[in-house]
Amino acid sequence: MRGVILHGPGDVRVEDRDDPTIVESTDAIIRVIAACICGSDLWPYRGADRMRNSPMGHEYVGVVTEIGAEVRNVGVGDFVVGSFFASDNTCEICQAGYQTRCIHAVGMGSIGTQAEYARIPLADGTLVATPGEPEADLIPSLLAASDVLGTGWFAAEAAHAGPGKTIAVVGDGAVGLLGVLAARQMGAERIIAMSRHPERQELARRFGATDIVTERGEEGIARVKGLTGGLGAHGVIEAVGTQEAMEQAIRSTRPGGYVGFVGVSHDVSLDGRELFFSTVHLHGGPAPVRRFLPELIDLIWNRTIDPGVVFDLTLPLEEAAEGYRAMDERRATKVLLTT
Amino acid sequence: MRGVILHGPGDVRVEDRDDPTIVESTDAIIRVIAACICGSDLWPYRGADRMRNSPMGHEYVGVVTEIGAEVRNVGVGDFVVGSFFASDNTCEICQAGYQTRCIHAVGMGSIGTQAEYARIPLADGTLVATPGEPEADLIPSLLAASDVLGTGWFAAEAAHAGPGKTIAVVGDGAVGLLGVLAARQMGAERIIAMSRHPERQELARRFGATDIVTERGEEGIARVKGLTGGLGAHGVIEAVGTQEAMEQAIRSTRPGGYVGFVGVSHDVSLDGRELFFSTVHLHGGPAPVRRFLPELIDLIWNRTIDPGVVFDLTLPLEEAAEGYRAMDERRATKVLLTT
Repeated sequence: MRGVILHGPGDVRVEDRDDPTIVESTDAIIRVIAACICGSDLWPYRGADRMRNSPMGHEYVGVVTEIGAEVRNVGVGDFVVGSFFASDNTCEICQAGYQTRCIHAVGMGSIGTQAEYARIPLADGTLVATPGEPEADLIPSLLAASDVLGTGWFAAEAAHAGPGKTIAVVGDGAVGLLGVLAARQMGAERIIAMSRHPERQELARRFGATDIVTERGEEGIARVKGLTGGLGAHGVIEAVGTQEAMEQAIRSTRPGGYVGFVGVSHDVSLDGRELFFSTVHLHGGPAPVRRFLPELIDLIWNRTIDPGVVFDLTLPLEEAAEGYRAMDERRATKVLLTT
Repeated sequence: MRGVILHGPGDVRVEDRDDPTIVESTDAIIRVIAACICGSDLWPYRGADRMRNSPMGHEYVGVVTEIGAEVRNVGVGDFVVGSFFASDNTCEICQAGYQTRCIHAVGMGSIGTQAEYARIPLADGTLVATPGEPEADLIPSLLAASDVLGTGWFAAEAAHAGPGKTIAVVGDGAVGLLGVLAARQMGAERIIAMSRHPERQELARRFGATDIVTERGEEGIARVKGLTGGLGAHGVIEAVGTQEAMEQAIRSTRPGGYVGFVGVSHDVSLDGRELFFSTVHLHGGPAPVRRFLPELIDLIWNRTIDPGVVFDLTLPLEEAAEGYRAMDERRATKVLLTT
């Protein structure tokens, strides 16, 4: 089969890879219908994470082509969505809703779903079948549920988005934008999107943002405070992963408020004293997307939400390298790869 | 009046200070019946916080001797307990339960309650009167409610202590010990006290600890995991404020679990990547004791809890310097000063 390999910084190639096979009796094999490039894929692409000759991709929707002997919940022919972490969904940690930290978790990035086929470990716990074969226009939204939507959803929940709340969103990538969508779905009254890109501002407004703040750093914090009676937002979504973004998020949150951080932290160091006196709640990490998948699939299936519009470039898998370049150069927010 | 002044590291003196007077119409003056020395007072005493010629003390119970023209909720002669932060208890932040971050907050440490009298700003919001004059043996417990009990309570709540939960407590000072008491009151099933001091272990058991772990650092973390099926505690109370204690707390918590940190952070720096992948909830800071005071006073008044037993040394105010030495040298867990 064909699949994406990162050879080194900036060097993405689509190559022949071995077809995946059932390894454990709990595995399934899927034909990948659509995969995509994640903002987090840019870290190794830019050399921030050292990776060589690595298969890439952890988001996917597809059709089951083969199942191991123990698989019960999905069958051959099912259209499925799965999280970017495989999980058994039965251990105590999964049952508490933290499937990305399942005691048997397998990161799908190590498998690489930017490919024609993929082995899905722990298929019963990982995959959720859609109610039937989806109409073609739903596929981008279902694919978004695999990571960016579920991650934005987790962040909005960690930020305690809800009726009467003001939620600020730091980061206007796909996750930040879908954090706006999630906050709106959860009933937030006011949603402040922090963005300086006109197209992304427009998408943020479409998803439910009520205010746009273009300033960053101290000026951005001051603007959020100005919009919230000097107190700061009730909750802030951090969807970048840098020192500046984390500080901006924490300092834009009112005392007792909530920071949901889902940007993969790179060289971030939090000052204990500042965090102590901030009295914010801090929660984040790799989003347990699996927890939310049934609800998200339902919302997409019923056309209540349309997260798939974050994909602003669709390319065939063979042109993955151009997809990486487009995201790296910010010519695209989110790239969908078709097989 | 007489009051404690810190002249510099290790140099505590009891001196003549001006009697406090009503400054704002929302002030009250109290005759301090009992004050105490806080673990956090040791930071400046040891030179970690630069302070010179500073009045000391922020915990207090007393009797109101004078009120400003606008004070309505307490009257002259009332026996009162107050938090270590004065707060209006009416602003949006107070109403959300974060009175230490009240938009008008005044730290009582700047006033110095290790003295015969103290001015209490925002008396209506800050002070809670007891149902009557307390019996003498209740006074230490009521004094504990002013800070250490309320702080342990806040930490236990931030750690999500409750039925069926395993809570670990890092730190065996008064706050850590009262965190044990709070976790037990909240219904925690298992409470792991981390302590290597026999007397403190005994008090921890009296307050409800079911397990004692004497190891620290990586060994301590391994012991907590060993007691929790390899997963870590559901919640951990951090009541020290050092790098080691914070790391021990975060690493002893299971994925999705809760860290309540109330040790005043000194030179603590949290690695963003570790925090991200830990997927714990982190919440703490100066405890909004005022939120809990009515409930805590009730529990003490009804003799349901006896937090006052954390005081293992009682001295007259004039001997405050010996109290500081005893706590610094760990000869005492918590020192009560009588006036």
